[in-house]
Amino acid sequence: MKKIAVVFAGCGVMDGSEIHESVITLLHINRQGATYQCFAPDIQQHHVINHAIAQPSEETRNVFVESARIARGEINKLDQLNPENFDALIFPGGLGAAKNLCDFAFKAENMTINKQVETVIKAFHESGKPVGLICISPVLAPKTFGAGVKCTIGTDQKTAQSIEKMGGVHIACDVNNIVVDETHKLVTTPAYMLANSISEVDTGVGKLVQKIIALC
Amino acid sequence: MKKIAVVFAGCGVMDGSEIHESVITLLHINRQGATYQCFAPDIQQHHVINHAIAQPSEETRNVFVESARIARGEINKLDQLNPENFDALIFPGGLGAAKNLCDFAFKAENMTINKQVETVIKAFHESGKPVGLICISPVLAPKTFGAGVKCTIGTDQKTAQSIEKMGGVHIACDVNNIVVDETHKLVTTPAYMLANSISEVDTGVGKLVQKIIALC
Repeated sequence: MKKIAVVFAGCGVMDGSEIHESVITLLHINRQGATYQCFAPDIQQHHVINHAIAQPSEETRNVFVESARIARGEINKLDQLNPENFDALIFPGGLGAAKNLCDFAFKAENMTINKQVETVIKAFHESGKPVGLICISPVLAPKTFGAGVKCTIGTDQKTAQSIEKMGGVHIACDVNNIVVDETHKLVTTPAYMLANSISEVDTGVGKLVQKIIALC
Repeated sequence: MKKIAVVFAGCGVMDGSEIHESVITLLHINRQGATYQCFAPDIQQHHVINHAIAQPSEETRNVFVESARIARGEINKLDQLNPENFDALIFPGGLGAAKNLCDFAFKAENMTINKQVETVIKAFHESGKPVGLICISPVLAPKTFGAGVKCTIGTDQKTAQSIEKMGGVHIACDVNNIVVDETHKLVTTPAYMLANSISEVDTGVGKLVQKIIALC
């Protein structure tokens, strides 16, 4: 039975992991006969957004603590993730991936990546294990997989250009599909970068999980 | 196209709506050709639980604001829910249903129900529209539907006895099934009251949504 590590970036589309994408990822892993363990870095969120009004609040929250909500408390800290114990790695999307795991949301192609996140992606890649990046998370690919890596964030021109400036090869993709870089064993799908409904997310993420398991 | 109102109680199994049950409810509504609108009461949470350690924190959070995370910001306040505009009503589970929407978690059968929650359930019931209650939410049934209403929370003896003491008729049910009270148009399923995996939640909630749409 394949074991998949899933990395969260908080809990909520505007400041953490997108909740639908996260739950649907876990559901497909389980439905398709694999197991999952959730992880998140033990760091402060960049900020907290009141999702009812889409405005920042004065609160401070921790990425690991908030991610534990999606994981129902069954979560480990990212620095405890030993790639030897897992067959694959998946990052759901949500702006937390671009605000907490790296600073793409603020610096675009001049971004830097959280050291633990960078280390873990490189470790899976270098050991030939597949990685899945959903929604905005593929911005993590060029600086971890290296120049020439193929990925998609859907069709958004500005984000695609930033990926290309970092050395990635962006491939336009519709919401119901995935882009597979067989050489790098990287699978990406647009999810809520394009989705107009939760069912569209389900279709794309379902294909991503299926391909990830096939590549294990 | 059937329109279903979904009521949240926060964001997280220990102090709000259970996130997997909530997302899977929305997914099945959409997959089965209906539409949804999310609602939550604009009230303070009973408390905030740090889900990483399952212990209360010193924070205060608002049920409506936190529920907005699951709804991706597309949520209305519960006192704005006009039953005339919807065909059915569903409450996911999670301890928030028993801590924020009523005080069952603290007072068992001596509980009282939040006035807005009570009003909206009674309004759907009295207009002959189906209601779905998931996981622990069926504790809301006896005091809103009246004595004799049939429901399930799975097999937990203590919770079942409390439902019976409030006048409900508890029917034991496994995680992959639903209990349907055709007279009251109430559908219930155990979900994480019994589930050992997210797929089991998916099966039970999928059947609940299917039956709710059939009863519309």
